[in-house]
Amino acid sequence: MPHINLPEGLPGISSGFAFRPETAKPMRELAHILLHGPNTLTPAERELIATYVSSRNDCYFCQTSHGAAAAAHLGKDAGLVEQIKHNLETANISDKMKALLNIAGKVQKGGKQVTADDVAMARDLGATDTEIHDTVLIAAAFSMYNRYVDGLATWQPEDPAMYAAMGERLARDGYIMPSAKP
Amino acid sequence: MPHINLPEGLPGISSGFAFRPETAKPMRELAHILLHGPNTLTPAERELIATYVSSRNDCYFCQTSHGAAAAAHLGKDAGLVEQIKHNLETANISDKMKALLNIAGKVQKGGKQVTADDVAMARDLGATDTEIHDTVLIAAAFSMYNRYVDGLATWQPEDPAMYAAMGERLARDGYIMPSAKP
Repeated sequence: MPHINLPEGLPGISSGFAFRPETAKPMRELAHILLHGPNTLTPAERELIATYVSSRNDCYFCQTSHGAAAAAHLGKDAGLVEQIKHNLETANISDKMKALLNIAGKVQKGGKQVTADDVAMARDLGATDTEIHDTVLIAAAFSMYNRYVDGLATWQPEDPAMYAAMGERLARDGYIMPSAKP
Repeated sequence: MPHINLPEGLPGISSGFAFRPETAKPMRELAHILLHGPNTLTPAERELIATYVSSRNDCYFCQTSHGAAAAAHLGKDAGLVEQIKHNLETANISDKMKALLNIAGKVQKGGKQVTADDVAMARDLGATDTEIHDTVLIAAAFSMYNRYVDGLATWQPEDPAMYAAMGERLARDGYIMPSAKP
């Protein structure tokens, strides 16, 4: 049961967003820019970073919904999402992505965990400063979203079909409310 | 030295904001609503929550700048800020604020750390659902800001006069860029 009187029937973060629309707006905008906006990292790569951090923070709603969004971007390849979460070393992704996920994993533990060597490794494998910046910020932002979702004890249904539909919608439309779009 | 080529001479988070103005905008807006917007928690109380979480995340820039903002709201009472950081149990604040800071400290560790008992205690001492929501979100948001500031290894000067001036400015004007105000 949620810790506060959240609107019923809305899963995960959407119940917090409905409870406090003022804070929902910038939180949605930040996710939209980081995961759905123009970027040299693909949307799938950015959703994988979000999924990886959410998995390490043990946030069921976030890792499942963003994992579904990543899978939707990847032509429904949920296998790669599972590899990222459970066998990063052998996952079928580029070495550059592995270096970025290593940085994201450090940020999940704490900002000071990121070393100059971690960043040099990513840069040597082709990561730009903006890609490193966005990796740090995606990992930092999901350290917020994950804590928000679980810190309120939001309702988190476990119906895979619901998450698959949500992932399709997020991959297509992003994170800004349809009514907020021009 | 920062991990990426951030603009020089800008302390802490402001260098990340200048590097990536697109993400800075919603990050500033969220801080402004949470710390400076209308609320039944005073600005000082909200800055103390931000300072407490930043202290527990060992983020020098954030705990010092928000501690200075809290002190500015409190008539320059830096003693209370130090109490919150180092001796919460005996700090000269209300029991309700202690219960909210207990929740914030749990969120800093992880969202699932917050228990129904933690929330019941805060509610019994007079906290409203919105105050509990905002406490969780301030703690979650500073789990992001702290990781962003340290994950990029931003420049963090140690001049107390600079932080005092910053605290005065933040307490007066909030977190939205002056140019973004109507």
